[in-house]
Amino acid sequence: MDLFKQPLKVINVGLLSFHEELVAQGVDSLHVRWKPPAEVAQAARETMRRYREKIDEANARALEIILAGKPVLTGLSVAREVIPGMHDKRILHSGPPITWERMCGPTRGAVMGALVYEGLADTPEEAGQLAASGQVDFAPCHQHASVGPMAGIISASMPVFVVENESSGHKAYCTLNEGLGKVLRYGAYDTAVIQRLRWMEKTLYPVLRESVQNLGKLDLAGLIAQALHMGDEVHNRNRAATSLLYRALAPHIVEVAPSRQEAREVLDFINGNDHFFLNLSMPAAKCCLDAARDIPGSSLVVAMARNGTDFGLQLSGTGNAWFSCPAPVPDALFFPGFSKEDANPDIGDSAITETVGLGGFAIAAAPAIVQFVGGKAGDALQYTLDMYEISAGEHKVYQIPQLDFRGSPVGIDVRKVVEKNITPFIDTGVAHKKPGVGQVGAGVLSAPMEVFQKAFEGLAEHLPGD
Amino acid sequence: MDLFKQPLKVINVGLLSFHEELVAQGVDSLHVRWKPPAEVAQAARETMRRYREKIDEANARALEIILAGKPVLTGLSVAREVIPGMHDKRILHSGPPITWERMCGPTRGAVMGALVYEGLADTPEEAGQLAASGQVDFAPCHQHASVGPMAGIISASMPVFVVENESSGHKAYCTLNEGLGKVLRYGAYDTAVIQRLRWMEKTLYPVLRESVQNLGKLDLAGLIAQALHMGDEVHNRNRAATSLLYRALAPHIVEVAPSRQEAREVLDFINGNDHFFLNLSMPAAKCCLDAARDIPGSSLVVAMARNGTDFGLQLSGTGNAWFSCPAPVPDALFFPGFSKEDANPDIGDSAITETVGLGGFAIAAAPAIVQFVGGKAGDALQYTLDMYEISAGEHKVYQIPQLDFRGSPVGIDVRKVVEKNITPFIDTGVAHKKPGVGQVGAGVLSAPMEVFQKAFEGLAEHLPGD
Repeated sequence: MDLFKQPLKVINVGLLSFHEELVAQGVDSLHVRWKPPAEVAQAARETMRRYREKIDEANARALEIILAGKPVLTGLSVAREVIPGMHDKRILHSGPPITWERMCGPTRGAVMGALVYEGLADTPEEAGQLAASGQVDFAPCHQHASVGPMAGIISASMPVFVVENESSGHKAYCTLNEGLGKVLRYGAYDTAVIQRLRWMEKTLYPVLRESVQNLGKLDLAGLIAQALHMGDEVHNRNRAATSLLYRALAPHIVEVAPSRQEAREVLDFINGNDHFFLNLSMPAAKCCLDAARDIPGSSLVVAMARNGTDFGLQLSGTGNAWFSCPAPVPDALFFPGFSKEDANPDIGDSAITETVGLGGFAIAAAPAIVQFVGGKAGDALQYTLDMYEISAGEHKVYQIPQLDFRGSPVGIDVRKVVEKNITPFIDTGVAHKKPGVGQVGAGVLSAPMEVFQKAFEGLAEHLPGD
Repeated sequence: MDLFKQPLKVINVGLLSFHEELVAQGVDSLHVRWKPPAEVAQAARETMRRYREKIDEANARALEIILAGKPVLTGLSVAREVIPGMHDKRILHSGPPITWERMCGPTRGAVMGALVYEGLADTPEEAGQLAASGQVDFAPCHQHASVGPMAGIISASMPVFVVENESSGHKAYCTLNEGLGKVLRYGAYDTAVIQRLRWMEKTLYPVLRESVQNLGKLDLAGLIAQALHMGDEVHNRNRAATSLLYRALAPHIVEVAPSRQEAREVLDFINGNDHFFLNLSMPAAKCCLDAARDIPGSSLVVAMARNGTDFGLQLSGTGNAWFSCPAPVPDALFFPGFSKEDANPDIGDSAITETVGLGGFAIAAAPAIVQFVGGKAGDALQYTLDMYEISAGEHKVYQIPQLDFRGSPVGIDVRKVVEKNITPFIDTGVAHKKPGVGQVGAGVLSAPMEVFQKAFEGLAEHLPGD
């Protein structure tokens, strides 16, 4: 009976509105953010519980490998010369496997542009016919040790960065970033796009290749760690990382460029594009995560990728299997003249950054991004704090100043995603849904729960997994 | 009597230890940070109260002028050609006026180095004799539209940046940053120091002068605003600002340098020194604050500067008067082999950055600095929050991401400093107290209250001031 004489103190679990109502009435209430777990098949849940220790051990091993990763830029080359399995009729794309018929507008546009660039078609229309004819061999970047932002198109003649994980020997490849606006990766394919790609091949590529050769190699983990101290999360914000890369390369560009004019062009091109580093943060993530593949029983995510139609996921413990569901349309800030009506569903391999603890997972370090889409610095902190809930550990090298230099959350555990009912928070660009238009905005999204439910059940089927 | 039946709830004002004791015993206690006002003469306090409205109006005008400042880098020149009143036997130094007899070790060392560099003496010993002879004309940088970090020595042949406040036409001058370690501004004067100064005059200066000419002009306010979003406070941390400056200048350096070799040398020099931008953030602050001088009745600070012996202060409402007291020794992290025993008292004009709302006032944007001296990110936030207490307003352009892009605190009001008993928080480097040694650490300090008490009383004597 004493209880009823005391002032009311409430612990509210779950729905925030109950808590807010109580606070409005002056009641002392503590809110616990909690959601019921996501639904998965009962049998799968039981299997996962039975193998809990085995999964824990496998995840500890996978995490250790991810954290030991030492990504360095070792050089540049051309796709056909270095990407395993690459050939002249093959086009690599972002996300899980997909046929021409199911490809979204921007991916189709980028494929058309790439076929014209390769000289396999004379016009975009002809390129579209060729692509539909079955004579082009489409495959995901991720299955060829590569990653590509947005449409993620890589064709045989394109120059690529070669990034190597010095701990494991894994290599990852990525094209050079073209800049913003009307660019191939956002599905644009007009003459200006193709001309830029040719300039990149003829001028940018040889100068950068020799510059990196001159430099020796570049420690990307160290550079990314610095960039996190400078307001980047190296997915949607790469200004600091691009600046540091520029500082590292400029003296060598000056030394190796055939002429002052070409040195100036190359410097201006990098300087004009704060996203230039994105195409290095992605393979830096990829080569560390590839090292953690194929650990029997591991429930850690080694790839999240979207092809503009499907959102796909791969786990360490389930080999090359892709778990997929429809890609969501991001919440975004749209460029003038565009709206959510114009937006293509989520697209690109760039969520590989989130998979290694960067991007949306490190967004506390980059509050400017949240502000850009209408949020506050406190929201950015909360997003990162939420990501610790679904991660197996904390990064040793990638730290967040705003959290007293705590390591960023890393190693997405599909079990935690399902149990906590929290999915990864991803930064992203937004492409127009029609081919040929290009970028229309940038934003954020939460990954769809459906792929995690499927992956959870998929892993359960694989268990014991050795 | 009801009061005594209720659970104890405490509001604690002042001493934190009472609050901590109560919390330890489970008592609900709210702590209010408060200190009694600093002591000033009763008559001065009354005068200041009597003229409160006049001072408020004067401060509003001064603040408006500071906030309207548009500092741009317009070019480079040589001290004797542009600094008002500069001549071949004049040496400018940091802080308030001082004689050779009272100069600290590092300032003496830097003067000796400058006299050798100018060819006025053959050896440091000879230079010391010349300096003591009365034939050298010492004057504060601040009285010659200039600022200098640490010893702040400017002699007639030194190249300087020319920074202009486009709103008011005020110009400010500063030498080029030499790098870290054994450098003139920290009181070193050996052959390597003099050789570096000559290289800066012969190679760095002409290339940078032509590069800036080629570029046209550089918006320093915009660059500083970006750097605050990238972890700098542009006093003790200038990595982002230096990177952005480097990006802006590199293409022009490539274009104007006489040879590839010289382009490479200049790029490597800037690239090798993350503090290179400090010598631009300082004149950028100076030209905005000089515009707010001489407003009758204004209690806003327009200069805080130290010569390594005295800490000096100037107010808008008291003309060229300096209020001074002994300079404190900073709390610092010392380089291996050095301790507080070796440290010279605080030195340099660089506190001009704090005076315009940067440096320690914007340290929330640069938590890495606080971590460097053993603090936490939360401490950095608190330091900046404290500075709002003593400031007249918030900056429109310089924003702090960690405080949801709130403008940095700006316009130090000597009345608030005395009333709240909080003095400005300043980032600083630490020089060895003996001439010829150089830098021994970096740290933070609170400005001494004594100069603010003197300035408060000094302004009261000036009132009504028109």
